[in-house]
Amino acid sequence: MSEQAIIQDIVITPVAFHDMPLLNSVGVHEPFALRSIIEVILTDGTYGLGESYGDLTHISRLEKAAQRIKGSSIYDTNAIYQICGDSLAGDATPGDGDGMAGMVTTASVADKVFSPFEVACLDLQGKLAGIPVSDLLGGRVRDNVQYSAYLFYKWAGHPGQPDDEYGAALDAAGIVQQARKIIAEYGFKAIKLKGGVFPPAQEVAAIKALHAAFPGVPLRLDPNAAWTVETSRWIARELAGIVEYLEDPAGGIEGMAAVAQEASMPLATNMAVVAFAHLPASIRRNAVQVVLSDHHFWGGLRKSQTLAAICATWGMRLSMHSNSHLGISLAAMTHLAAATPNLDYACDTHWPWKRCEEDVIVDGALRWRDGGVVVPSTAGLGVELDREKLRMLHRQYLDCGIRKRDDTNYMRRFEAEFSAEIPRW
Amino acid sequence: MSEQAIIQDIVITPVAFHDMPLLNSVGVHEPFALRSIIEVILTDGTYGLGESYGDLTHISRLEKAAQRIKGSSIYDTNAIYQICGDSLAGDATPGDGDGMAGMVTTASVADKVFSPFEVACLDLQGKLAGIPVSDLLGGRVRDNVQYSAYLFYKWAGHPGQPDDEYGAALDAAGIVQQARKIIAEYGFKAIKLKGGVFPPAQEVAAIKALHAAFPGVPLRLDPNAAWTVETSRWIARELAGIVEYLEDPAGGIEGMAAVAQEASMPLATNMAVVAFAHLPASIRRNAVQVVLSDHHFWGGLRKSQTLAAICATWGMRLSMHSNSHLGISLAAMTHLAAATPNLDYACDTHWPWKRCEEDVIVDGALRWRDGGVVVPSTAGLGVELDREKLRMLHRQYLDCGIRKRDDTNYMRRFEAEFSAEIPRW
Repeated sequence: MSEQAIIQDIVITPVAFHDMPLLNSVGVHEPFALRSIIEVILTDGTYGLGESYGDLTHISRLEKAAQRIKGSSIYDTNAIYQICGDSLAGDATPGDGDGMAGMVTTASVADKVFSPFEVACLDLQGKLAGIPVSDLLGGRVRDNVQYSAYLFYKWAGHPGQPDDEYGAALDAAGIVQQARKIIAEYGFKAIKLKGGVFPPAQEVAAIKALHAAFPGVPLRLDPNAAWTVETSRWIARELAGIVEYLEDPAGGIEGMAAVAQEASMPLATNMAVVAFAHLPASIRRNAVQVVLSDHHFWGGLRKSQTLAAICATWGMRLSMHSNSHLGISLAAMTHLAAATPNLDYACDTHWPWKRCEEDVIVDGALRWRDGGVVVPSTAGLGVELDREKLRMLHRQYLDCGIRKRDDTNYMRRFEAEFSAEIPRW
Repeated sequence: MSEQAIIQDIVITPVAFHDMPLLNSVGVHEPFALRSIIEVILTDGTYGLGESYGDLTHISRLEKAAQRIKGSSIYDTNAIYQICGDSLAGDATPGDGDGMAGMVTTASVADKVFSPFEVACLDLQGKLAGIPVSDLLGGRVRDNVQYSAYLFYKWAGHPGQPDDEYGAALDAAGIVQQARKIIAEYGFKAIKLKGGVFPPAQEVAAIKALHAAFPGVPLRLDPNAAWTVETSRWIARELAGIVEYLEDPAGGIEGMAAVAQEASMPLATNMAVVAFAHLPASIRRNAVQVVLSDHHFWGGLRKSQTLAAICATWGMRLSMHSNSHLGISLAAMTHLAAATPNLDYACDTHWPWKRCEEDVIVDGALRWRDGGVVVPSTAGLGVELDREKLRMLHRQYLDCGIRKRDDTNYMRRFEAEFSAEIPRW
């Protein structure tokens, strides 16, 4: 085992960055989003980067695994996966630590813990070999990874604070205006609307307004399982020929399968199928036709490629899910998407919703062009830490007081009767 | 794209090496086995190695693909796979070119063509990074890859030639004797018998004799689908508690599923499920419980790892198939097996049946110990060409006159009435 490749140290830094009041079926985004920044450091000081959820539960799991991973080779990702699983034995920490506010509840915890370490190891492997991470994944098949315009119903600003740059979007007209602004800035060529916020007929109207305003642009609607099977079927009829897919209309494999039987468009998910263990039952029922992969909970980049191969084998399509994230995750998502031939759709990203000056990476490494990110061709992920910014976002984490994402209770501060129960309609 | 990683040239050399008269359901091995040796060469002369089938049809496909692959980067295996598929468009060459004498007929041709190029690219990637191929596959989880004693009914020697070192094995006593010799030499801890040669009761008797002679040693029987479903079920009852799995007792996914319904042991296959396209139907029917992977027809090492992940996801087990092969393939099989956590059984290999002095690699790189091969820890596959030996085996190819493996017609030269029709019993 080459000494050069031995992991000398691992540093995990929780950070917080400003987020906008984006609405979803379980509440509203808090003023800060949390992430963890993972540095895997070799004896000569070379480091690899990973980014993951920032909830306290998750960070404590990452810390525990990190202690055991030290001393491993960056090439031994099989062994590191095993270490991550072993480190969870007897774990009594409550909650899933997934930073997803209850919208994903059953992903494999070992896969989530392993993911940022794998990404950091691949970053280092690329750096040592002088090749981009996409080359470690079989080479890029596209030079620009397309992302979608990810629209949200939202308040004008956080209560008690000035309006943010996007302002309010609480009806069809507001959503169309938001789409115009975001597309003008990024050039996105596909649009996703986060739904599950207003009664279904209003959200159908918003999608139809987008369809009228952006003819020919692929559209998607994602209510995070806020609808019953019956409502979902009605929506599917209403939006036939208008959306490229419906995302998580109803809950669970059973619910999705029941909707899929009657829907004319494919159904996509990042809720019903979020771990390898869910695939057999979902495939047996033909519950979903599009899997929204996400390397943060599918166990890293290589395992996400396995998911892609499974989709190809069983005739399912592939798209990509996103949570609020920073530049390390965007780089990893971009390398993965670039090296995945059967990625059929523009990927999701929350990127436009964070302040552009708030990140932990040196500016300029990731370039947006024509609705996508140019795949970095420098060694590793192609991004480096800006330590001043990292300190600033860590300070923000310490100061903001948020230790676990909780859209529901934040919403209840303003709407005491708010219920996050789904299905709602 | 780094200039250093560009493929400057590809050289494909057909070779032949002596083989023994091993019997199977479709005939008997000819005096020579064919392979192709693939060198992928960079501008500075560094080369990577692959090994594949040696049939004329296959070699012409490899040559056609090689012409188009030149100029690619060794990291662009996604693109090289696409090139291999494209190079087959309009391919009118008859036959499968798989060197398997009709025992595997439906593997993906693109996967078979791609495989040796992928292995050679990984060999080069490892050489450039200074790491073994197993590290490119997630790192080895074992230092010694176990193989099985692969027993064959056989004649004493090829007709008209002196007896070979193993002599005849045409009944239970001969098989036990063969097992003793091969285990004494290699230390194998699992035993596989190639069946489908004699009436089933005789082969059951041979397995029972092995069970008595080697108590506790895992046993397998593989008749290459020579039996009906009814016969297979009878054998399954006879060998309950005696074999760790039955390999391809009956033909096809339907046949295997029908046997599996009643068999107490897992059923394994390298005939019914030999490509990703076969997995959905097989899994739906629970036709096989063990997949015998083989990187030569599953599309190389990375795709074989995808197969392993699919097996883990659907609760199938994993073992490894072999054809007659040389040292490059043994090195590739060993790296793959070393980096595949859920490999549940000793791998198959035809290694003992070739003359030890006949190979194309420099002696000493692959060390047998305790029934397995010590995983090479040097860069790449860890094997180098012995050009003198390569020339010798190529000369043997030119001289032997065999251009396509044909166990059946070779058998008919001695038993004119021999029928290769299966099922036979």
